[in-house]
Amino acid sequence: MENFIFQNPTRITFGKGAENQVGHEVLPYAKKILLHYGGGSIKKTGLYQKVISSLKEAGIEFIELSGVQPNPRLSLVHEGIKICREQRIQLVLAVGGGSVIDSAKAIGAGVPYSGDVWDFYTGKAVPKETLPVGTILTIPAAGSEASNSAVITNEDGWFKRGLTSDLIYPKFSILNPELAFTLPKHQVACGVSDIMAHLMERYFTNTPNVELTDRLCESTLKTIINNAPLVLEQPDNYDAWAEVMWGGTVAHNNLLNTGRTGDWASHDIEHELSGIYDVAHGAGLAVIFPAWMKYVYQHDLNRFVQYAVRVWNVENSFRTPERTALEGIRRLENFYHSMGLATDLKGIGIDDNRLEEMASKCTNSGHSTVGNFVKLGQGDVLQILKLSGINTAKK
Amino acid sequence: MENFIFQNPTRITFGKGAENQVGHEVLPYAKKILLHYGGGSIKKTGLYQKVISSLKEAGIEFIELSGVQPNPRLSLVHEGIKICREQRIQLVLAVGGGSVIDSAKAIGAGVPYSGDVWDFYTGKAVPKETLPVGTILTIPAAGSEASNSAVITNEDGWFKRGLTSDLIYPKFSILNPELAFTLPKHQVACGVSDIMAHLMERYFTNTPNVELTDRLCESTLKTIINNAPLVLEQPDNYDAWAEVMWGGTVAHNNLLNTGRTGDWASHDIEHELSGIYDVAHGAGLAVIFPAWMKYVYQHDLNRFVQYAVRVWNVENSFRTPERTALEGIRRLENFYHSMGLATDLKGIGIDDNRLEEMASKCTNSGHSTVGNFVKLGQGDVLQILKLSGINTAKK
Repeated sequence: MENFIFQNPTRITFGKGAENQVGHEVLPYAKKILLHYGGGSIKKTGLYQKVISSLKEAGIEFIELSGVQPNPRLSLVHEGIKICREQRIQLVLAVGGGSVIDSAKAIGAGVPYSGDVWDFYTGKAVPKETLPVGTILTIPAAGSEASNSAVITNEDGWFKRGLTSDLIYPKFSILNPELAFTLPKHQVACGVSDIMAHLMERYFTNTPNVELTDRLCESTLKTIINNAPLVLEQPDNYDAWAEVMWGGTVAHNNLLNTGRTGDWASHDIEHELSGIYDVAHGAGLAVIFPAWMKYVYQHDLNRFVQYAVRVWNVENSFRTPERTALEGIRRLENFYHSMGLATDLKGIGIDDNRLEEMASKCTNSGHSTVGNFVKLGQGDVLQILKLSGINTAKK
Repeated sequence: MENFIFQNPTRITFGKGAENQVGHEVLPYAKKILLHYGGGSIKKTGLYQKVISSLKEAGIEFIELSGVQPNPRLSLVHEGIKICREQRIQLVLAVGGGSVIDSAKAIGAGVPYSGDVWDFYTGKAVPKETLPVGTILTIPAAGSEASNSAVITNEDGWFKRGLTSDLIYPKFSILNPELAFTLPKHQVACGVSDIMAHLMERYFTNTPNVELTDRLCESTLKTIINNAPLVLEQPDNYDAWAEVMWGGTVAHNNLLNTGRTGDWASHDIEHELSGIYDVAHGAGLAVIFPAWMKYVYQHDLNRFVQYAVRVWNVENSFRTPERTALEGIRRLENFYHSMGLATDLKGIGIDDNRLEEMASKCTNSGHSTVGNFVKLGQGDVLQILKLSGINTAKK
C-alpha cells in the first residue's frame, strides 16, 4: 500500500425529496447564486420548480445559466465566469449530471483567477481559491458530485481535458434516486458504463498489497452489475436506483483509490473519442475498456483472473488462468451489450479514418504516455483503437 | 435504503513516517495544544520524541496530560478540561489508541461547555461547539480516529456511556501502520475484535435493499479476517498492518452505515462488562457477539446465511439454511480463539454473580431496550449474558 492523504469534505444529503433541502444547504455559503443546468429537462420533470421554491423560501437570490451540453464546453464556462463576476455570485449550484457539475466546477475555479480558466486544464496554472459549488444530481454516472475532478472540452481544437484539485470538491451534493426515474435508457446505460469505468480504472493497478481497496472496488462493481439491469427494466425501482446512485458516488469519491495508483488510460483514450466525435463518455468507455483489457491483460494475468473470478463469478480455470481472464473480459462485453451498448467503434458511429489523429493527440504527438498499469505510447494507443474496431464478444 | 446525510471531514494522512507531519497538520488550527496520551509506551517506542520534534519545528507550544487508561475515565477528562481552559489551549492532540482519542474528544467537547461534560453522555445536553481534536493513531481498533463518537467511563457508578456528535470528528488523523508493530499480541487481538464488531453491528440491520453497504461491510470484514493472522504472526508486516489499520478506520467512519440502521446491542451489553470489570472492550465483544448471534439469528435467518456464505466462505446448505447460519457463527468463534481470545465470560475472568445487575443497568432497570435488529429487554440481555457463560465453539 502506498502512503496517501484522504479527505473528502462533500456533505451528501441522500434520499427521497432531498432536493427540497437545497435552500437550507446553500444558506451557509451564499445569499446569491448561479443556478446552472442543461437543456431544460429539469423543467419538464418539475425539479426546476422545486429548486426555485426551496431557494426562495430560504431567501436566496439566483441568476440562471442553462445550456450545458454533454461534454461541457469552455465557451459556456467563460460565460458563467463573466456572470459570476458581474453579479457577485457566491456559489454555483449545478442541477444535472456530470456535465453540468463539471461546468459549475470550472466556473467556480475560474471566477477568482485572473487568467483563462483553461490554464488549469493544460497544467499552466493551479487553482489557489475557488467559488464554492453545490450540486443536485440527476444522473448517476460521472461521480463528479463528490469528486475533486472536472472535465471540460475546448471547442478550439476539440481538446477534452481534466482538472484535479481538492479545492473543487462540491461543498454539498443532494442525491435523490427518484430524480433518475425519467432518464432515457441509453443515458442510463452510459452512466452505468461510466461508473464501472471509474471502478476499473482504480482496480487495475501495479501497487501490491491493496486487498481492502481491491475488495471495496469489487463490491461496488458487483452492486452496480446487479442493479443496472433492474433500473433498465423498472425505471421507477427506487431501491435499485439508490444502489446505482450511491454506488456511482462511492466509485469516484477517492476512497477506493486510497493507497494505490489507478490506470486511467481508457479514460484518456476515450476523451479523444468524445472530444472529436462528441459521443457520450460512457458509450465511448464501453468500446475502449474491453480493447484496453485485451491489449494489457498479460501484464498482470493474476489481477485479471481475480477480476474475472470475484467480479464476474467466473469459475477459475486454475491450469489455464488465461482462459479465466479472457472470460472475465467477455462477460464485461456481454454486460455492455445487455444494456444496449456497443463495444466496437462502428457501433458508436466511428470509422477508422481518424485513429492515427486520436492516438497522436492522446499522447501529445507521441511525446507522452497514457496509463499507469501499462504506460502506453502512441503506437499502443493506435493498436487499442484498432482493437476497438472489432466486436468480438459473443452474445 | 433509508434517507441519510453523510459527511466525514477528517483528513487522513496515512503511511510510513506520517507522524513527522504532525506539526504541519496542527498549524491550521493551533499554536498551543494539549498533548494527550496514555501510560508512556509512546516514550519507549520513540514516538513521543518524534511528535515533540515536529511540534517544536512548527513552533507549536504544548502542555502534556498523560495517564489515559483503557476505558478512559471521566476524572481525567475533567482534569484536561481544566488545563485547556487555564492554558487557553486551541487543540487537543491525542497520541494513542481509541481510549486516548475518546478522552481527547470528551475534553474538546467539555471545554466550551459551562456544565459538566458528562451531561453529553447522559443525553442531558448536546454539544454546540467543541475544541478541535487531532490524532496520531497507535492501535487499530476503536475507529475513533475518524468517527463522530466517543465513549467515557464515569467512575461514580462505573457507567460507560457514549456520545455521538458530528462536532467531534477529529480534524485530522495520522495513521502509520509501523506504530502498531510493537503492540502486545493480546491488544492486537482485542483491536481486531473491536473492528469486526463495528462492521457486524452495522451489518445486522432490518433495513431492506442495502446491497452496496452489505458488500462493503463484507469486504472489510474479509480483509480484516485475512490480515489479522498475519499481523499476529509477523508483527512487523507493514502491508498486513496497513490493511488492518485502514480497515479499522473504514469500519467506523460511517460510510458503511449510510442508508441503514445498525444494531449496537452487543456494544451496549459489552459496555456493562467493561464498565464493571474493566476488561478490554474487544475481549468483551468476543464473548458477547457470538452469544447475541445465537440468541437472535432466527429473526432474519437469510441475513445470517448471507453472512456465513459471504464473510466466512461457508458452503450454503440450501435445504438446511440454519446449518449454514450456525456454521458462520461457529467460524467467528473459532476465529476469536485463533487469536487467543476467549468466547465465554469465564475466559475473561467474569463469573455469573452480577449478570442480573448488568442486564438491569444495560436496560435502565428494564425501562428501555438495547439493539435495533431485535429490540432486547432486560430479560433478553440476561439470557444473552447467560449464553455468554457457555463456550460452545469447537476448536
